[in-house]
Amino acid sequence: MTLEDRSARPRIATPRSTEEVSELDKRIIEHLQTDGRRPFTQIAADLGVSEAAVRARTNRLIERGILQVVGVTDPLKLGFQQMAMIAIRCESDQLVTVAEQIAEMPEVDYVVITAGSYDLLIETVCEDNEALLRFLTERLRAIAGVRETETFVYLRMVKQTYQWGTR
Amino acid sequence: MTLEDRSARPRIATPRSTEEVSELDKRIIEHLQTDGRRPFTQIAADLGVSEAAVRARTNRLIERGILQVVGVTDPLKLGFQQMAMIAIRCESDQLVTVAEQIAEMPEVDYVVITAGSYDLLIETVCEDNEALLRFLTERLRAIAGVRETETFVYLRMVKQTYQWGTR
Amino acid sequence: MTLEDRSARPRIATPRSTEEVSELDKRIIEHLQTDGRRPFTQIAADLGVSEAAVRARTNRLIERGILQVVGVTDPLKLGFQQMAMIAIRCESDQLVTVAEQIAEMPEVDYVVITAGSYDLLIETVCEDNEALLRFLTERLRAIAGVRETETFVYLRMVKQTYQWGTR
Amino acid sequence: MTLEDRSARPRIATPRSTEEVSELDKRIIEHLQTDGRRPFTQIAADLGVSEAAVRARTNRLIERGILQVVGVTDPLKLGFQQMAMIAIRCESDQLVTVAEQIAEMPEVDYVVITAGSYDLLIETVCEDNEALLRFLTERLRAIAGVRETETFVYLRMVKQTYQWGTR
Amino acid sequence: MTLEDRSARPRIATPRSTEEVSELDKRIIEHLQTDGRRPFTQIAADLGVSEAAVRARTNRLIERGILQVVGVTDPLKLGFQQMAMIAIRCESDQLVTVAEQIAEMPEVDYVVITAGSYDLLIETVCEDNEALLRFLTERLRAIAGVRETETFVYLRMVKQTYQWGTR
Amino acid sequence: MTLEDRSARPRIATPRSTEEVSELDKRIIEHLQTDGRRPFTQIAADLGVSEAAVRARTNRLIERGILQVVGVTDPLKLGFQQMAMIAIRCESDQLVTVAEQIAEMPEVDYVVITAGSYDLLIETVCEDNEALLRFLTERLRAIAGVRETETFVYLRMVKQTYQWGTR
Amino acid sequence: MTLEDRSARPRIATPRSTEEVSELDKRIIEHLQTDGRRPFTQIAADLGVSEAAVRARTNRLIERGILQVVGVTDPLKLGFQQMAMIAIRCESDQLVTVAEQIAEMPEVDYVVITAGSYDLLIETVCEDNEALLRFLTERLRAIAGVRETETFVYLRMVKQTYQWGTR
Amino acid sequence: MTLEDRSARPRIATPRSTEEVSELDKRIIEHLQTDGRRPFTQIAADLGVSEAAVRARTNRLIERGILQVVGVTDPLKLGFQQMAMIAIRCESDQLVTVAEQIAEMPEVDYVVITAGSYDLLIETVCEDNEALLRFLTERLRAIAGVRETETFVYLRMVKQTYQWGTR
Repeated sequence: MTLEDRSARPRIATPRSTEEVSELDKRIIEHLQTDGRRPFTQIAADLGVSEAAVRARTNRLIERGILQVVGVTDPLKLGFQQMAMIAIRCESDQLVTVAEQIAEMPEVDYVVITAGSYDLLIETVCEDNEALLRFLTERLRAIAGVRETETFVYLRMVKQTYQWGTR
Repeated sequence: MTLEDRSARPRIATPRSTEEVSELDKRIIEHLQTDGRRPFTQIAADLGVSEAAVRARTNRLIERGILQVVGVTDPLKLGFQQMAMIAIRCESDQLVTVAEQIAEMPEVDYVVITAGSYDLLIETVCEDNEALLRFLTERLRAIAGVRETETFVYLRMVKQTYQWGTR
Repeated sequence: MTLEDRSARPRIATPRSTEEVSELDKRIIEHLQTDGRRPFTQIAADLGVSEAAVRARTNRLIERGILQVVGVTDPLKLGFQQMAMIAIRCESDQLVTVAEQIAEMPEVDYVVITAGSYDLLIETVCEDNEALLRFLTERLRAIAGVRETETFVYLRMVKQTYQWGTR
Repeated sequence: MTLEDRSARPRIATPRSTEEVSELDKRIIEHLQTDGRRPFTQIAADLGVSEAAVRARTNRLIERGILQVVGVTDPLKLGFQQMAMIAIRCESDQLVTVAEQIAEMPEVDYVVITAGSYDLLIETVCEDNEALLRFLTERLRAIAGVRETETFVYLRMVKQTYQWGTR
Repeated sequence: MTLEDRSARPRIATPRSTEEVSELDKRIIEHLQTDGRRPFTQIAADLGVSEAAVRARTNRLIERGILQVVGVTDPLKLGFQQMAMIAIRCESDQLVTVAEQIAEMPEVDYVVITAGSYDLLIETVCEDNEALLRFLTERLRAIAGVRETETFVYLRMVKQTYQWGTR
Repeated sequence: MTLEDRSARPRIATPRSTEEVSELDKRIIEHLQTDGRRPFTQIAADLGVSEAAVRARTNRLIERGILQVVGVTDPLKLGFQQMAMIAIRCESDQLVTVAEQIAEMPEVDYVVITAGSYDLLIETVCEDNEALLRFLTERLRAIAGVRETETFVYLRMVKQTYQWGTR
Repeated sequence: MTLEDRSARPRIATPRSTEEVSELDKRIIEHLQTDGRRPFTQIAADLGVSEAAVRARTNRLIERGILQVVGVTDPLKLGFQQMAMIAIRCESDQLVTVAEQIAEMPEVDYVVITAGSYDLLIETVCEDNEALLRFLTERLRAIAGVRETETFVYLRMVKQTYQWGTR
Repeated sequence: MTLEDRSARPRIATPRSTEEVSELDKRIIEHLQTDGRRPFTQIAADLGVSEAAVRARTNRLIERGILQVVGVTDPLKLGFQQMAMIAIRCESDQLVTVAEQIAEMPEVDYVVITAGSYDLLIETVCEDNEALLRFLTERLRAIAGVRETETFVYLRMVKQTYQWGTR
C-alpha cells in the first residue's frame, strides 16, 4: 500500500466496538504509547512472548482500528499558521449524520460528539486565516444540518501527549 | 531508559521555536504521519538518502520536541469511560502560568491556549464519573488562577487522525 | 395488575387539578413522605382515625395522581453509569406538545416546564455514554419541535429527599 | 423513631459506595419502584424467598442509604406555589464543600454535581415568591463559595416517576 | 365613554412623533408626574395661566398619547402572584411586526424594542404560574416571528416611580 | 407639600405587606387605573358609596404605598434620548442591599428582583449617551456588590399601560 | 470625478490579494499613516526618491485598494448620536454572501468576518435611536441569511488611530 | 515635528467636547472624508472661501482632535497576520480607568465603551498568533480591572470606509 493510499483513508472509530482487547494487547499498547518505534523484539522480551506474537497482535490492533502508530507533530511549527477547535450545534435530528460527514473531510483531524452546550467539537489545521475561512464557509457550513459554529483559534499548543495507559 | 521514565516526561511544546525544519525533515515527518513504524530503510529509499540519515534526523526531531512517534488509541475503548474536553477561563493575569501548571498533570493529555470565549481547552482521560469529579475538584480547580470551568463529556469519538502533512 | 403493567404506565401530572386535598389527606401524606411503608394502623392511631379511612384515602390520593408511594434509589449505584439533566429549548409554539411527548418516554423520569433561559428540564437515566447518545439522537432530538438541547451529565448525586411536607 | 427524628435526617448519598447490591436486592428494589407499599409476602412469593428475607434485605438497603421508600407528591398541588431548579457556579476550589452545605438545608430536596456549564443543580420547594427570594438571599447565597445562581421557576411539573429499574 | 371602552384601548406609542411639546406642556406634565390628581386650579396658579388652559392642554396631551394620568399599583399586592419581564428574540425580519402584535395583548402592559442581546422586552402581569404558562404558550409564542423567549419571574418589586421630569 | 418635596420621596415598595386591600379599594383602583383624574363623585356614584368614602380610601391607599396616581409619559418624547433597562448580577450575598441602594437613586424609576439569569432589572431615563455612561460608571457600578451589568438601550417604546385590574 | 461619485463607491477589500507591496510602498504608507496630507516632496526627500515616484506609487496603492487617505472623525461629535457595533450570526451557508451585501450599504463603514462566537462584526453610524432601529429592521435584518443580531451602542469613543505601521 | 514624535501621540477623544463645529467646518470635513489629499485650493473653490481659510480651519480641526487626515490600510495585507476585536468586561467600578489605560497602548488602534453584554470593544493589530498571545497576557490582562476578555480573530476585512458625512 502506498503512502497516498493510506493518507486517503481517514480512521473513523466504529461505534460500540464489542471486540475484546486482551491483557496482552494492553501491555503492547502501553509500550507503543511511550515509543511508537520500540522494536518488537524488545517489547516481546519485556512481555515474555515471541516477537511474532507482538507483531501479529499489533497489526491486528491497527487493522481493527483500535491502535494507530503515528508521527505526531505540532502543526503550528510546520507551516500551519491557524489551527482551531470548532464547536458546532446541529439541527436537532442530524447530529450523528453531520459528525460522520465532517469526519470524511481531510482538513479535519478530530471529531467528538459531546454532552454540554455544544453538540460536536472538531479540530482543523489550516495554513492561514483565508484557508480557515474557506474551510468554514465552503466546506463545514455547507453541510446541511450544521446550524451554528464557534471557532476557537489556537494561540499556542502547550501540551500534546498520548500516554494515558489502559484500564 | 525505562518505560516508566519516559512516561513521566510529558512533552510540553516550547513556545516560539526558532529552529528550522528542513525540507528533508518534512518529507520524513510525512512518512511517519502515515505509518509511525515504517522502516527507515524504506523511507530512505523513497527519499533517496541513506538509512542512517533518516534515523539521525528522526531522532533529532524527537529530541527537539518537534515529532513524537506514538501509539494512539481511543481511550473510550480501553477501559476509560469518561473522557472530556474542559474549557477554562482564568484570572486575567494568570493565563500562561495556569496553562503550564495544567500541562504538568498526567491526567491531562492536551492543553491549548485559545482565542474566543474561553482561555484554555484541555483534554482529560478518566476511568469514570467519580475520577472525573475528583480530577476537577481536587486537581484542576485547586490551581490558583482557574476561575471557571465548563466540562464537555465525550459521548463518542468519531475521528482522530494525525495526517495533516507539512507546509 | 402485574409489575410490567404498572411499569408501562408513566405517572403524568394532570395540569391544574381543581380537586381539593383535605387536611386529613395532608397529614397522611406527611407520614408517608417520611416512611412510605409506615403501617396504616400506626398512621391511623397517630391521627385518631380508623385504619380503613387511612387506607381508603391513601388509595384515593394515588388514584388521583396526587401521591405515589415508591422505592427511590440512586441510579448511579445500581448499574446506571450516566444520568443527566437535559435542558431543552423548543420551537416557540410547541412547548407543551413537546413536553408531553417526552413524558411518554420510559427513559425519562422527570419533566418540568420552566421559566428562564430554557423551556424544559428533563432527567434521564442511562446505562452508559452510548446509551445516552442514542437516547439524545434517536429519541429526544427526533421529536419535531425540539430545537436545542444542553446535557448536564451527573458526576455525583449528593442529596435526594421527598420530605417537603404540605401547606 | 418518631416522625420528627426521621425528617431531620436528610438522606445524603455517600460517594463511591463500594458495597455490593446483590441480584436479589435488585429484584426487591424493582418491586418497590413500582409500588412502595407492596406487601413483603407478595414480593417474597414472586421471588421465591421467605418474607423475612425480603424484609431484612429491604431494611438493610434503607439503612445503607441505597433505597428509600417514600410518598412522593407534586408540591405545586399541595400548597407550594414556587418550586425551582437552581443552577449554581461555585468558586473554583469549593464545589464539593458547597454541595454538602446545601444538602444540609431542609428547603432543598435535590442536589447533584454536574459536568457542563454549571457546577451544581439543586431543587427547592417554596411557598411563594417571597419565600423563594428569602431562601436565595438569606440562605443559599449566604454560603461562602456560591458565586453565581440562575433560578428556573417551575411553571408546571409534567412527569415525575422512579421506575428506572436496575442493571 | 365607559370604563370598559377605555380599558379596551391600549395606549400604543406612535413612532417618531414630530409634534412639539411646549414649555408650558412640560411644566404641566411635571406637576402631574408628582401628583396625578393635583387640581388644575392649583397648577394654573403655580404656572400663572388660566385653569381652562391647563385643562385644555392636559386633555390635548392625553389625546395625542404623550401623557396618561393613571392609578399605578404593585400587581404583586393586588392578587397577581406572577409578574414577569420576558425577553424575546424575533425572526430577523419581523421585529416591528411582532412588537406591534404583542402590544395589542391585554395581558401585556409594557413593550420596548431594545439594542443588545435581545430584541424586545415585555412585561406581563399574571394570576399564577399556570396563567403565565398559558400566556407564554397559547398567546405569546403562538405569534409567528417569535423565535425565542426568556422569562424573568419577579420575586419582588422594589421601586416603581414616574417622576423623571422633562428636558 | 411642594412639588420638590414630593419628587424627593421615591416610592419604594415595602416587602410582604400584610395589610388587606378591600373589595371596595379594588373597585376604586380599577377606576383610577383607567383614568387617574376621574372625579371622585363619578366613582362614588358608580360604586354606590359616598364621595367622602372614595376620597378617604384613595388617600389611604396612596399613604400606604399601594397606589400612586401619576402622569406617565414616554421619556423618549420629552427630551430624554437614552432610556435603558439594565440587567445586574450582584455579589452572591448582597442582592437585597444592592437593590435598595439603587432604589434610592433618582435616575432610576424601576427596580425589580428577578429569578433567571440576572438578579435585578432596573430602568433608567437619561438625557443622552454621556449621561447614561456617567450613571453607569459613577453611580451604579460604584455600588459595592454590583458585579456585572448589561445595558439594553431602548430603541422605541411601543406600549406602556397600567390597566391590569385587580384579583 | 466629483465628490458624490466617489462617496457612492464604497471601498471593499478584495480577498486574498496576491499583489506585492514593495518596501518603498511600505515606507510611503508609514508616512501617510502619520499624516495623510504630508507633501509628497517631503516624503520623497525623506525616502531619497523623486516626488513623481511617491505620487505615482501612492496613486497606485489607492487604485489597488490597499491604501486610502481620508479624513477620519468621531461621528459622535458631528451630529451622529448613535453609533454601534453590531455582531451578527448568519445562516450557516451564507456568511460571505451576507458580508458582501452588508458591505454595499452606505450606513455601514466597517465589516469584518471573525472567528469566535459571532460570524460578523459591522459598525454603523446613525443620527439617533429611530434611525438605528430603521437600519436594523428595514435594512440589515431584511437580508436573507442574517439570523441573529446583537447591537452594542457606543457610549463613548476613547481612541481611534491608524498608525500601526507595516511589516 | 518628526514622524516619530507624532506616532507617539495617540489621539484620544476628549469626552463631552463642548466646542462647536461650524457648517463650514463640516463641509471641509466632508471633502476630506472623500479624499484626504484633495488640494485646499480645490476645496476652497468648491465652498467659495479662501484657500487660507480652508487650511486654517483644517489645521484647527486637527489640533482640536476632531479630525485626522490619515492613510488607512488593511493591516492583513501589510504583513500583520492577526488582527482582532477584543471584547472586555471590567471590574464594576473601573470601566473608564481601564479604557484610558488601554488607549495608551500602541498595539491598540480603537477603543470604545459600549452598552450591552460587554463593557469595552478594542481592536488590535498583531504580527502573528504569538504576538497576539503576548499582547493579551503580558499587556492587556495585566491591567488591574480587566476581568474577562473574549477575542474575535479577524478572518477577513470586507469593508473599511470613513465617508459617513456630517449632520
